Amino acid sequence: MPAIDLNCDCGESFGPWPMGDDTAVLPHVTSANVACGGHAGDPTTMRQTVRLCKALGVAIGAHPGYPDMQGFGRRSIPMAPAEIEDLVLTQIGALHAIARAEGVELRHVKAHGALYNDAARTPLIAQAIARAVAAFSQDLVLVGLAGSALIDAGHAAGLRVAREAFADRAYEPDGSLRSRSLPDAMITDPARNLQQAISISARGFALSVTGIQVPVQADTLCIHGDTPGAAARAAALRAGLAAAGVEVRTY
Amino acid sequence: MPAIDLNCDCGESFGPWPMGDDTAVLPHVTSANVACGGHAGDPTTMRQTVRLCKALGVAIGAHPGYPDMQGFGRRSIPMAPAEIEDLVLTQIGALHAIARAEGVELRHVKAHGALYNDAARTPLIAQAIARAVAAFSQDLVLVGLAGSALIDAGHAAGLRVAREAFADRAYEPDGSLRSRSLPDAMITDPARNLQQAISISARGFALSVTGIQVPVQADTLCIHGDTPGAAARAAALRAGLAAAGVEVRTY
Amino acid sequence: MPAIDLNCDCGESFGPWPMGDDTAVLPHVTSANVACGGHAGDPTTMRQTVRLCKALGVAIGAHPGYPDMQGFGRRSIPMAPAEIEDLVLTQIGALHAIARAEGVELRHVKAHGALYNDAARTPLIAQAIARAVAAFSQDLVLVGLAGSALIDAGHAAGLRVAREAFADRAYEPDGSLRSRSLPDAMITDPARNLQQAISISARGFALSVTGIQVPVQADTLCIHGDTPGAAARAAALRAGLAAAGVEVRTY
Amino acid sequence: MPAIDLNCDCGESFGPWPMGDDTAVLPHVTSANVACGGHAGDPTTMRQTVRLCKALGVAIGAHPGYPDMQGFGRRSIPMAPAEIEDLVLTQIGALHAIARAEGVELRHVKAHGALYNDAARTPLIAQAIARAVAAFSQDLVLVGLAGSALIDAGHAAGLRVAREAFADRAYEPDGSLRSRSLPDAMITDPARNLQQAISISARGFALSVTGIQVPVQADTLCIHGDTPGAAARAAALRAGLAAAGVEVRTY
Repeated sequence: MPAIDLNCDCGESFGPWPMGDDTAVLPHVTSANVACGGHAGDPTTMRQTVRLCKALGVAIGAHPGYPDMQGFGRRSIPMAPAEIEDLVLTQIGALHAIARAEGVELRHVKAHGALYNDAARTPLIAQAIARAVAAFSQDLVLVGLAGSALIDAGHAAGLRVAREAFADRAYEPDGSLRSRSLPDAMITDPARNLQQAISISARGFALSVTGIQVPVQADTLCIHGDTPGAAARAAALRAGLAAAGVEVRTY
Repeated sequence: MPAIDLNCDCGESFGPWPMGDDTAVLPHVTSANVACGGHAGDPTTMRQTVRLCKALGVAIGAHPGYPDMQGFGRRSIPMAPAEIEDLVLTQIGALHAIARAEGVELRHVKAHGALYNDAARTPLIAQAIARAVAAFSQDLVLVGLAGSALIDAGHAAGLRVAREAFADRAYEPDGSLRSRSLPDAMITDPARNLQQAISISARGFALSVTGIQVPVQADTLCIHGDTPGAAARAAALRAGLAAAGVEVRTY
Repeated sequence: MPAIDLNCDCGESFGPWPMGDDTAVLPHVTSANVACGGHAGDPTTMRQTVRLCKALGVAIGAHPGYPDMQGFGRRSIPMAPAEIEDLVLTQIGALHAIARAEGVELRHVKAHGALYNDAARTPLIAQAIARAVAAFSQDLVLVGLAGSALIDAGHAAGLRVAREAFADRAYEPDGSLRSRSLPDAMITDPARNLQQAISISARGFALSVTGIQVPVQADTLCIHGDTPGAAARAAALRAGLAAAGVEVRTY
Repeated sequence: MPAIDLNCDCGESFGPWPMGDDTAVLPHVTSANVACGGHAGDPTTMRQTVRLCKALGVAIGAHPGYPDMQGFGRRSIPMAPAEIEDLVLTQIGALHAIARAEGVELRHVKAHGALYNDAARTPLIAQAIARAVAAFSQDLVLVGLAGSALIDAGHAAGLRVAREAFADRAYEPDGSLRSRSLPDAMITDPARNLQQAISISARGFALSVTGIQVPVQADTLCIHGDTPGAAARAAALRAGLAAAGVEVRTY
């Protein structure tokens, strides 16, 4: 029986500023990427988010990002690989301490925003992240874009990896994600989202923008939780996957 | 044979700004309190500092502080006890991750600046810190001002504690530290520093400002590392303690 | 004809995090307190907020706060009066530059949160703020709690002042605001809000919690814009004031 | 008689962390670029620096940088041109307010670090900075690398510009600065520094690394103040220029 994990970002409030609706969205996913105070989050938000995940039985992962609150980690900050390694270590460690106080273990690490993108493309950055994760714990799963440099770096570091794909992003014929600067980059129709989710999960391919089938091997699908109606869409996607015979569970 | 630990703050550089002379001072202490990114420090500074401590064989502890770089953690930020607990957890966790990557363990936790002072006086804050430390690891030693609320909170949480005293601060007849706003609060003469260090370490008392002996039970003495000549003074103090038959070692 | 100004805080988004609904609330007030990057706001949020105020013809003021995003300026940071003076100067200056680029002038300065409260009670802090405002421009109006130390400091500095009162806060018989830690501190009933607004604006007194009338001389009423339904309540209050013969206009 | 301005960065301390030796270096320059809280500086450091400049009669300019303390403004943060315009406005404004409180006027604006470099190369960024400066005041002089996009943008915005050259950086035959990643990029010999300073100031050319003379039209030379011996070198350079008949004065 085919299976897939559903993950979403959470804990991205900061001080007085809320973001997203974690309470509504998290019940529909199996893995949660919790902001660690780099691009978003603060110690008390981290604590509340870990408690919520624990109560829901959702697997908890660290979601490290560039140290840039104002830019929400979406701006690529030029840092040396060794600096990125240290940055990722401290963010994993911060969340780990919160998780330990709540009696749960971290399961995975997924980089955020620009750091995720840089790690997908740049082997030196990918290796820095993999080094940080491996140094912290060989039991952590490294999440990265399917087919990217980060997956390669994770394998080279002896880590378990989880390959991420997207139900709401269009794929190019070469298997890469279509740039958001181009038309038709986002798939907004829920029926097509579900179709792509099932196709990737159960059959290992996506229909590219040119109509050609491209192989996409994935262990987890990214759910975007910060848009209106996100919870309802996540619930529908999960139900649709189950109805199509795809088991939704943590990798 | 009487024994005492010597501790000093370190890793308090930030980005381009150096502080202190850790390389010169750390060889003369037995415990290092490493800034964790709250009042000072950044991931790469933490890494370099942990490496230095490891190379020197100095015990490494977390040095959490209020999240206030500009004020260097010397300003008391009004926070709820639960917020302080979360703050301390994330800072311990950040340093723990760095230490794990370097293959060393954290040994102790000592709060910094205003957080140290608030924890000495305010049981709710002391208990929040003790809760954080105990939740993270029962093997960590909680360092606090001798005779303070933090020591009580550590005991109540079932933690090992290390009681801190000062060779360069004058004591009042009731055993409290003389306020820095009063004259003669600081003991600047090296000979008197050594005398007080020996008296506390070997005999368990200090000569108060009124000339009365007051009991001061201490496991560790604080070395101030950020003043000119700090390394030479630390070396002299350590040598003087040894010459007086006091073993200088980690508690 | 009696007259009153209505003011509200705005521009309190930060980076990716929105706050309040400035577009809905600002049309109903006559003065806007724009966050300046201390407790909230960032350069681009400041620019957009100033543009919105300009388009609406709302008077623009600086809203400086303690440098504490995570605490949203609601935590009192212990700073020397000279530091507070410099802090307020730089925040006024930042907003002034944005306003100048938009071809508008700043009209007033109102401190935020803990800084507002500290300035109401502590003459040294009040004087520091008054010094900053007077040094920047004698044309700026200093807004402060009616009857507070800040109003005194403004007068002493030769500044025009605007005395602030609240339609939704209960007054004690001595004219002070009832502490929020006590019951009945907030007046949530819109009819009673309007009644108090008219009473203060037109007759110069409020009905205290004991039923005794207390004099409250005010030039401006604070509208809270960050609660659900804020815009509708502000519109109703403004209409009610007009219907009662109170002119709503900038002081 | 040929003339040149000497400028240096200053006010780059932050909270407890000092940087540079402004008191020693500033007496030897004619223009000071004061950090504005973006890459370095804080309100009280700004105030002290402006006071020092005023006492020394040194012209004061704003030195805006990317909002990145940890990276000291040396990391290029991807921001939209409009965001950069707002950023520069608020930083100019912050320093302007401090200067106004001290009764002095800002004379120039020089971007810092990565923002300076980006503005030299990227017309959209150069234009954003020029827009900010022109919007704030047509009386401000825009300082930029001689021959760069920023000088062009300043001219297009109708601003007076000051073209900057370097006595301690090697020039390529095309007039560009030799990359620091290449050998011989820095000219460390004081005699050669002076020679290049005189050559640029009095004759309008520099001797490039290949021995070919390249035209370098400059109004100001940059003095690096954060290296050991900076004050003595600055004094010697200034004396040497005077001895060679070059007047050292603000442009």
